Formats: sequence, structure tokens, C-alpha cells
Amino acid sequence: MEHPSRYLTQMRETAPLIQNITNYVAMNIMANVMLAAGCSPAMVHSREEAAEFAERAKALTINIGTLNPDWVAPMCAAAEVMNAAGKPWVLDPVAAGGTSFRRATALKLAGLSPTVIRGNASEILAMVGQKSAGKGVDARDAVAGAEAGATELARQVGCVVAVTGEVDFITDGARHWRIANGHPLMPQVTALGCALNGIVAGFLVGQPDAGEATACALAYYGLAGEHAAQRAQGPGSFQMHFLDALHQMTPEMLDTGARIETA
Amino acid sequence: MEHPSRYLTQMRETAPLIQNITNYVAMNIMANVMLAAGCSPAMVHSREEAAEFAERAKALTINIGTLNPDWVAPMCAAAEVMNAAGKPWVLDPVAAGGTSFRRATALKLAGLSPTVIRGNASEILAMVGQKSAGKGVDARDAVAGAEAGATELARQVGCVVAVTGEVDFITDGARHWRIANGHPLMPQVTALGCALNGIVAGFLVGQPDAGEATACALAYYGLAGEHAAQRAQGPGSFQMHFLDALHQMTPEMLDTGARIETA
Amino acid sequence: MEHPSRYLTQMRETAPLIQNITNYVAMNIMANVMLAAGCSPAMVHSREEAAEFAERAKALTINIGTLNPDWVAPMCAAAEVMNAAGKPWVLDPVAAGGTSFRRATALKLAGLSPTVIRGNASEILAMVGQKSAGKGVDARDAVAGAEAGATELARQVGCVVAVTGEVDFITDGARHWRIANGHPLMPQVTALGCALNGIVAGFLVGQPDAGEATACALAYYGLAGEHAAQRAQGPGSFQMHFLDALHQMTPEMLDTGARIETA
Repeated sequence: MEHPSRYLTQMRETAPLIQNITNYVAMNIMANVMLAAGCSPAMVHSREEAAEFAERAKALTINIGTLNPDWVAPMCAAAEVMNAAGKPWVLDPVAAGGTSFRRATALKLAGLSPTVIRGNASEILAMVGQKSAGKGVDARDAVAGAEAGATELARQVGCVVAVTGEVDFITDGARHWRIANGHPLMPQVTALGCALNGIVAGFLVGQPDAGEATACALAYYGLAGEHAAQRAQGPGSFQMHFLDALHQMTPEMLDTGARIETA
Repeated sequence: MEHPSRYLTQMRETAPLIQNITNYVAMNIMANVMLAAGCSPAMVHSREEAAEFAERAKALTINIGTLNPDWVAPMCAAAEVMNAAGKPWVLDPVAAGGTSFRRATALKLAGLSPTVIRGNASEILAMVGQKSAGKGVDARDAVAGAEAGATELARQVGCVVAVTGEVDFITDGARHWRIANGHPLMPQVTALGCALNGIVAGFLVGQPDAGEATACALAYYGLAGEHAAQRAQGPGSFQMHFLDALHQMTPEMLDTGARIETA
Repeated sequence: MEHPSRYLTQMRETAPLIQNITNYVAMNIMANVMLAAGCSPAMVHSREEAAEFAERAKALTINIGTLNPDWVAPMCAAAEVMNAAGKPWVLDPVAAGGTSFRRATALKLAGLSPTVIRGNASEILAMVGQKSAGKGVDARDAVAGAEAGATELARQVGCVVAVTGEVDFITDGARHWRIANGHPLMPQVTALGCALNGIVAGFLVGQPDAGEATACALAYYGLAGEHAAQRAQGPGSFQMHFLDALHQMTPEMLDTGARIETA
């Protein structure tokens, strides 16, 4: 793919306002990741204002990490505002296979036409009703084992599905992309997957090709992880260097370092 | 102003217990900022205990960042406990112009006699019903454009109003202060503005002049940001060095580095 | 004690899934602490899924830091699942003496047979109805002054009680342990005490001696704090180095550095 940096550049130039309905663990690091990358995060989830705020946001992310039944209605309402206005939104079905309430909510949200569903292999398998080795929020399944399920889910929902792991797999049901960027320290910092949703949303704003935008977002994120790992001595220093690396990444660095395989 | 460090020194010597009803994004970094600076934070917001806990706290901060209707009653109850005992409290009307629910709640709380209202220019303009360029939680308005509105708000409410930005503006309706300390990396770390409320509250405890205490708190905070920026390579390392700098600041450093203009 | 590292090694080899019902301030740093140490955290607290999720977790931690009445029922339900299956759980009665609601909830949970109760001296004294100097979430009482209360609480509840402070005191009502590891910077970072509960839970999984497992967890944690302090310049850099130190600790380093006194 030529010039994945054009997505990063457009995001930085417009600093789009992205609304995030996410879990308590992720809120702070997600906002910091988005600020470091160059978009404008707002965490707005209450019933009284989620839909009203969605009118002004350029994109939305929904994450069911620390799911509470009171949040499901505002999640749905905000998603419908995005759909009505043709604005993109990203669904992260955290631990979809963990409890029955969680899986039911993830399926309900998937029925509301997300632009992108992003999860680890265990979560994507849970969405298509396949058995998974996942025990909690960690992925216990390999990305490769979820490729067929991801393609099926993309076709059912009519969206892009991104399975993140050692090598990420992205599909819109017809085309697919594999992203070889990333580093083993990334899953050792909590909520970096959740925070990635905000970058995907930022890359989607104003772009016609959601699959390609998602692929470029994942390459940017993984490459920042590689840069951070070169300076890190463990997960604590990795998190700090990762925020710096998101911020320091130039278009040239991204175009040179992105490892995107298209098919 | 002579010796702004006397506020810092008094706070560190007494380590006052400050109750904070704040948003989910800010809770952790706010507590860490307050511990690094030398006061004692407690995040207590539920209806069952907000007012009871306020009896023992020396000051209170209220922030409507991730506002939930269930929190409004305990916010009001805790504020009234502070007022009845003559103890200071700080209001942060986050994104007051963002939704109608948010603006109504901010105005309701402003009607309960806060000691200080602190916000960015967009938020202060929203409080006085003026049009703003603000789109979310970020300030899109310049501090200078909110000076008249801030003075009007200070007179209406009978409190100190602090508008934070490139050069901070503080007014009690008659006097005003401008603080030239700070660094552009500060708004690149989420919730550093929210966390500042805790430092303002800590500086207010036991002090008769709320305007001067607020000015000194902002100078201390901005100067710590300048020190951190000298060592930072991006927003990740900036956050770490900022906590260290709050902790390492000596009275001499503050008295030398504070750039407070009084009028 | 010989080879405290055997608890760390077993935890790392099995990476047990630990469910945490904890406060908003602690959620992120607790998850990062647990990942850095080598177990698998999941923050699951809602009524719809706390008990169902507890079926698959290997251990549970309950922390009443930012207590909300809606959370009490799922806390109790999850605790009962652990008890029925003979799986360990840890109670952290944060600021138990702070409000009447908080103390009542802490006592209710203590009545549900926790494996370990961990708190600072003020909190442990509040649990046995003794007067305390504690004003908020900080400990204002010395560990030594809470030893008799801790022993009484351990006998009443039939559990291990750990009082953390400058020198930690652990008792099962008959035996006791003192842990001299740690550093004064540790209480300057918010929620490191809360995060420790996750490490205690991780060390308890599959171990018959809860007192010894708790002692080894505290030694590991305090020793990581000592290592981090050697590189830190303040509480910000301390937090980063602490996560790295938890991750870098080898069994040999722990066996050499642990300062556990048994009686």
C-alpha cells in the first residue's frame, strides 16, 4: 500500500473530536494515546448526553470492557446517531465470550452496523459462536485460527473486522490485510487494545475506505510499539515510550516502517 | 507577589485531606498529582457518603467531566457541607457547553457558592452564556477572549474565576492576576487540568485570600510543567517528569520561577 | 523462610485469571501491576456478571475504595462463588473508618470468610472497632499499634490479616510474619496498596498456606519497590520503574532480597 501516512496526516491536520464510550480501565490511557497521536478524545457515556454529544463528534468508539446495563441504551443511541449522519463508529467486544450478558450485548451492538469491529481472536470467535480458549480479557487463540470467523462476521454485519494479535488480520469480507508491526510488550500494558480503537476511529474520519484506514491505523500503532520497545526496560517504561513514539512518528517513519500485506 | 511558596509550604506542612468528586479519566492522575505535591486526596462521591465524608475534609473539588445524574445530588450535598463550615471548594465545569445537561448542572453548582471556578476559556464562556468555539473538552477559545466573561462570572457568583490556557487569567471580580508559567505539552496529557483543581484546593486551605492562593497554585503547577518539559521527549515522558517536578519543587525554585502579574 | 520465589514462579507459570472488583482510581494501575508480575487480571463488577465470571476466575479481590451501594450485592455474590468452590479471595477495607456506610460494608464482607484481609493500620483498627488516627485513605497509625487488633480480627474471621506499612505485619491468628521490604515512595503513588491485592491473590492460587503466600507476596512487592527507588527521581519515575521491577524480578533476586521474619 502506498503512503499509509496519509491517514495519519489527515487525522493530525483535522484533530477530529472522537466520542468514546469505554471501560474504566481504559479511559485515561485511551485519552492519552489519542492526544499523543493527534486527535481529540471525549469520554461521554451517560444516558442524558451520549446521543446529544454524538451529534457533534466526528466518530465514535464503543467498548464493553467494564459493562454496566445502564450503559447499553446510551451506547445504542449514540451508534444510531452516527449511522444516521453517515459517521463511522468502532465496536470493541471485550471478552465477548466471558459471560452471557456480555455476549448478548456485543451481538446487539454488532447488529447496529458498526463500521469496524476490532477484537482479539478469542473475542472474534465468540462473536460468531465458535468455541474459544479465551478465559478472560486476554486472547488465548491465535489470529490465524480466527481468520475464517472474522471473514464470516464481516460479511454478516457488512463491516470491517480487525483481529489483533502477533500479526493482525483485517477483512471487509472480500479483501484482507495483514499487519506485521507490533511488539510482545504491547499486551503487557493494560488497555492498549482498547486505546487503539480511538486511533482507528481517528483514521476513519473522512475516509472512504474503512478497511485500508483500519490497516494503516494498526500499522502506525504497531510501529510505535516497535519504536518504544527499543528504549523500554519493561512494561512500565514501555508505556511511557509508547506515548512518546505515537507523538514522534513522522509520515516518513510510518511509510518506511509499515509492514502491511494486502490481498 | 512576594513568596508564592508560602502557600506550597503551608500545604506540605499540613497535608490537608481534600475530597474530590471527579471524573473517571482524572481520578488516578489527580490523586498522583496531589500526593506528589503534598496533600492528601480522597475520591468519595457516592450518595451514601459524600456529605458525611465532607465533614472531615478540609476542602472539596467538584468536576463534571464524566457526568452522571446520580452524582449531582451528592455533589450538591458535599458543597453545602463545605459552605456551612466555611471550608473552600473548587468547581470545574468540564465541557459546560457540550450538552444541555452538562451546562444545566454546571450552572446549578455555580449557584452553590464555590470558592473558585476553574476552566478553560470555552468552558468559562459557556458559563456566562456566550458563544464559544469549543467542540469538546479542549479549549478552542483564547484566554484573552474570556477575560470579560470571567470577570462577569466572578461578580455574579461572588467567587474567584480562573481561566487556564497559554497565559492563565484569574479574577475575583475586582483584582486580577495573569500567570505566564506553563508549557504546550501540558494539554497533551489528559486530565492535567482536572488534577490542578486538587492543587488549588490544597493551596486554599486555611488561607484568607482565595484569589492569591489560586494564582500561586497555577504558577506552581505551570512551573513544574516547564521543569518537566526540559527533560521530556513527548507526552508520555512529560507526564512522568511532571509528577517528579511537582515533588521536587523547592520554595526557592517556586519563588524564583513564578511569573505572576498582578493588577 | 526458604525460597519465597516458589510462589512467584508458580504464579508466572500458570498466569491465573484473577477477578477484581475494585475502585476507579486503582483499576488501571492494578491491571498493569498484575500483568507486569505475571497474572491475568479482569475487572468485572456488574450485578449481571460478577458471579458468573467468578466461576471461571481462580481467585478474587474485593476493594471498597470508591464504594457504590449497587456494587455490594455483586461483591457478596462473587465472594460466595469463591467460597463454594474453595477458591481464595482477598478483601481490602479501604478507609473502613471513613464513613458509616463504608464500615458497615467492610464488616459485611468480612463476615463472608475472606482468605486474606489486607489494609493499613488505620483500616484494620477500624475493622475491630478501635479508635484510629486515620483521616482518609492514608494510614495515620503505625503498624505496631495494630498488631493486637490484627490478631483479634484474624481469629474472629478465621482468615489471614495483613497490615501494610513501614514493616508489614501478617497473622493468621496463631503464627505471624514481619516483612521489612518496601520504600517510602510506595505510598506516594496512589493505589499501589490496592494493586497489591492482585499480587496476593495471584500468590494464593493453588497454595495451601495462605499466611506464607501473603508474606511472600508482600516481600516480592516491597523488594520491587526498593529496586525501583534506586532508579527513581520522584513518584512519577518511581511508578514506571516499579512496573519494570515487578517484571524484571528473578526468583534468585527475590530469594536473596526478601526480608521475612517468621514467628
